[in-house]
Amino acid sequence: MNEFDYINKYFKPLTGNIGRNLKDDAAVFKQNANKDLIISTDTLVEGVHFFGTEHPADIAKKSLRVNLSDMASMGAKPLFYNLSLSIPKNKVDFFIPNFCKGLKEDQEIFNLELIGGDLTSSPSHINITITIFGQTRTGTSISRSGAKNGDFLFVSGVLGLSKIGLDNFNKTSNHLSIAQKKYLIPQPRVSLGLLLNNVANSMIDISDGLIQDATHLAVNSGLCIHLDLDKIPIPHIQNVTNNLLLESALYGGDDYELLFSCNQDQEQLIKKISKEVNIKITKIGNFDIYEDKFLKFKNNSEIPKNKSYLHF
Amino acid sequence: MNEFDYINKYFKPLTGNIGRNLKDDAAVFKQNANKDLIISTDTLVEGVHFFGTEHPADIAKKSLRVNLSDMASMGAKPLFYNLSLSIPKNKVDFFIPNFCKGLKEDQEIFNLELIGGDLTSSPSHINITITIFGQTRTGTSISRSGAKNGDFLFVSGVLGLSKIGLDNFNKTSNHLSIAQKKYLIPQPRVSLGLLLNNVANSMIDISDGLIQDATHLAVNSGLCIHLDLDKIPIPHIQNVTNNLLLESALYGGDDYELLFSCNQDQEQLIKKISKEVNIKITKIGNFDIYEDKFLKFKNNSEIPKNKSYLHF
Repeated sequence: MNEFDYINKYFKPLTGNIGRNLKDDAAVFKQNANKDLIISTDTLVEGVHFFGTEHPADIAKKSLRVNLSDMASMGAKPLFYNLSLSIPKNKVDFFIPNFCKGLKEDQEIFNLELIGGDLTSSPSHINITITIFGQTRTGTSISRSGAKNGDFLFVSGVLGLSKIGLDNFNKTSNHLSIAQKKYLIPQPRVSLGLLLNNVANSMIDISDGLIQDATHLAVNSGLCIHLDLDKIPIPHIQNVTNNLLLESALYGGDDYELLFSCNQDQEQLIKKISKEVNIKITKIGNFDIYEDKFLKFKNNSEIPKNKSYLHF
Repeated sequence: MNEFDYINKYFKPLTGNIGRNLKDDAAVFKQNANKDLIISTDTLVEGVHFFGTEHPADIAKKSLRVNLSDMASMGAKPLFYNLSLSIPKNKVDFFIPNFCKGLKEDQEIFNLELIGGDLTSSPSHINITITIFGQTRTGTSISRSGAKNGDFLFVSGVLGLSKIGLDNFNKTSNHLSIAQKKYLIPQPRVSLGLLLNNVANSMIDISDGLIQDATHLAVNSGLCIHLDLDKIPIPHIQNVTNNLLLESALYGGDDYELLFSCNQDQEQLIKKISKEVNIKITKIGNFDIYEDKFLKFKNNSEIPKNKSYLHF
């Protein structure tokens, strides 16, 4: 099978009207005057973002979900995506059918369609780039820069689980399986993001650890975040110390929880939304005027040195 | 410098309003009810699509231009693009500043802006994925499927030059330099594509050789193309035989000329458009009812076996 055969057999069934059956040089999207189109791209590289030993269907889901998480953090409804897959020839036969199976399953869960992309060979490792498209009413997407002095800072779910899963990925242990699963297939907070659209005034998804992503909100809003270390929601995992979990929460990546600010008046509404989507939401700090630091711990201790993952 | 430093120093200056200074998780594009958004993706892999010894600014231009060519073939006006760059750590210092210089130069020529993307490390080779966005009036983009029985088939420019450039890329020879340059930095026919928007009824850009791309038009339009071999525009290159040039035209890739159909009545208009953009346009065949083959040579000889590049 050559690339056209693979495209026809495995990728074409994932498309709808916008992708024009992958028959043309481009996809065609009819615009709507009352909407903004929200566009984001994430790349996953074998050996950097995933091991390569994962099942291709799981790699597909992770690739889609890290992108879906960006739609969630903008408060946008995901619509469709395109995909570039570069893959060594000897991996094609097994990888592509299973990868597309994973895409299909997640397309159904998140109501998505494929609109196009590129399929090429690669001299060594697999490289996956997805550009995802979502929509909001005009002017209602949530930036990183809208927090106001006095706002509360909230976070969804628990933090640090994914990093524990990554560090113990090849261990067989029942009490680690929930962490391994969270690392393998994250849960983007799409429904929560949509409900926060008129509530949160700044938002980000935590992909690089709480410290780094909270700093993005503080810097872009020009404020200081007072972070309450004691309130950071960490999971309980047998044989893993709370200190290690807290370090994972602060500096580990791949949590894909939503971190957001809103006016103090909205606290009751946040509780209601939390119940509605059945996702824990925790108040972990508040915004203050910037003086000398973008991030302070409430007990006034120093913020540990940034240990978040850097590519270069 | 880490990836945030590179993004701030080199990529942020390439952005405008839509990319929100790369500060948010996604770009935001305000839709227009009278327009279609046209979306296409092309990936260039080091060792597959380029050698890696080219100057990074030239690699940047090629990456943008192969994408621009897809906008041209849809009859769309290019607007903006996003970029995913995966690159080995030891190449970052030299590659990124020069790559961004090339992007900037072409952004000015083609009136484009960067709206976002992803920058990651790579264990070995460079992988570049660009998604490009263009616009047409609603419902006016040009598909591959609109040719009608009796239509003429036209092609812009000359064919085969790029393949000769590729095959002789490392030779130092004056008479090969035009071919090498065409391979290195293609010339997407954006202005021509826009002028053909109300004229051509099917169009494709020739990236995989004339035979393969003409077949796409024929198959998708459900017709047979009678191709006049004697009319195919090939360049004159000293010391390169016409036979080799014709073979390059038929099966070589990377020409990025426009191949399109239109009603016979439009032939005079095509000549006028050709003069306006100062690009040679040649009638090389016509469309007929499909009987047993999608492609026939006018002298009834057999079409040579497909030798176009395949990734798998």
